[in-house]
Amino acid sequence: MDEVRLIEIAEDIHADNELVARELRIRLGDEKVFLVNLMSAPGSGKTRTILRTIEELQTQLRCGVIEADIDSKVDAEAVAAEGISAVQLNTGGFCHLDATMVAQGLDQLELADLDVVVIENVGNLVCPAEFDTGAMLKVMILSVPEGDDKPLKYPLMFSLCDVLLVNKIDYLEFDLSDFDVAKLRERVRKLNPEIEIFEISAKTGEGVGEWAGWLSREAKRFLAD
Amino acid sequence: MDEVRLIEIAEDIHADNELVARELRIRLGDEKVFLVNLMSAPGSGKTRTILRTIEELQTQLRCGVIEADIDSKVDAEAVAAEGISAVQLNTGGFCHLDATMVAQGLDQLELADLDVVVIENVGNLVCPAEFDTGAMLKVMILSVPEGDDKPLKYPLMFSLCDVLLVNKIDYLEFDLSDFDVAKLRERVRKLNPEIEIFEISAKTGEGVGEWAGWLSREAKRFLAD
Repeated sequence: MDEVRLIEIAEDIHADNELVARELRIRLGDEKVFLVNLMSAPGSGKTRTILRTIEELQTQLRCGVIEADIDSKVDAEAVAAEGISAVQLNTGGFCHLDATMVAQGLDQLELADLDVVVIENVGNLVCPAEFDTGAMLKVMILSVPEGDDKPLKYPLMFSLCDVLLVNKIDYLEFDLSDFDVAKLRERVRKLNPEIEIFEISAKTGEGVGEWAGWLSREAKRFLAD
Repeated sequence: MDEVRLIEIAEDIHADNELVARELRIRLGDEKVFLVNLMSAPGSGKTRTILRTIEELQTQLRCGVIEADIDSKVDAEAVAAEGISAVQLNTGGFCHLDATMVAQGLDQLELADLDVVVIENVGNLVCPAEFDTGAMLKVMILSVPEGDDKPLKYPLMFSLCDVLLVNKIDYLEFDLSDFDVAKLRERVRKLNPEIEIFEISAKTGEGVGEWAGWLSREAKRFLAD
């Protein structure tokens, strides 16, 4: 009986959230801010990917970051140390961000001075997939050590993202994880034929230019509209 | 307003679950089955760790496995292929297991023929920490590529587990992740001074004997009571 009750409640929360997310997207359209929701499991390299990506973007676009964690502010500190506008949201146990929390984060940034804001969602391949944050673009990271079978186990996340970043490709040469990139691509495309896939190493920088170039074009198209 | 409502609901569900978990633990005490709840982020190596551990235990203890995933049955198939009793629970989108789901899984195993049952929880460092499954022992895995900062970000999981398995220590020699084992231990002990920590590689087998030996002693103490 627990199960049924939980699902009903979740639907209510989702319905409210959809509304808030839609309103937030309209507000961001007016304010000309391109919002990106970055999701992954813990330890996939979200923070380092954000730093590398913004390094590439910042000659052309003004970027800010909303960091979300259950606890601590280590990620926002790491981002701010690079001179990037950053806000830390502590979810206090919550396993995902919703649109209301994101709106609270955005209120703390000077949006008039920003073109792109990247949300680093809570490290979790499950719950964040179910909540629209108001972002225009949903991006996920899968890192090589996590294994190429993850689309089979967390299909929703792979199904709804616009972009998959396969991170830590520098691990491939050590043959520690038996990771098969072709098999991964096949599994992901089966769930989501339209998804953009980039192979990167946020550590070495490999592949980041191509991904950042694509993102920059998407953001500029939005800002020019 | 969403936040407050969600917290209230979660407390109700937790209260019900505590009751079911307590009853399940009494039942397992009567039936002499030692239940282990294994939790980690996606891709930390839960399935391979279970296989390696049972390989060590099975000359002395009869072992079964409950696999939980949002979707797919690849893990249960991998376990069953090794001749181990396995049940797959598909949570249908749920991000964690609760005691009711675990009881349903146990109903499908021949408990009279088993001494130890290991639950492979949904890959998630957040939500499973909040739900008592009825297990006597809570074990978590953190794998080296995830990074040594994870106790700062997911403190609840580290605080409540009895055992931490630091997996994929074969990655340490490649210096890809800047992982500092001493720093990790310090962070974990600060949250949880009593926790047992084992460094293992489920792939190479390094350290698994020591962990399995400890687990075997705990299980036998329980079974002898």
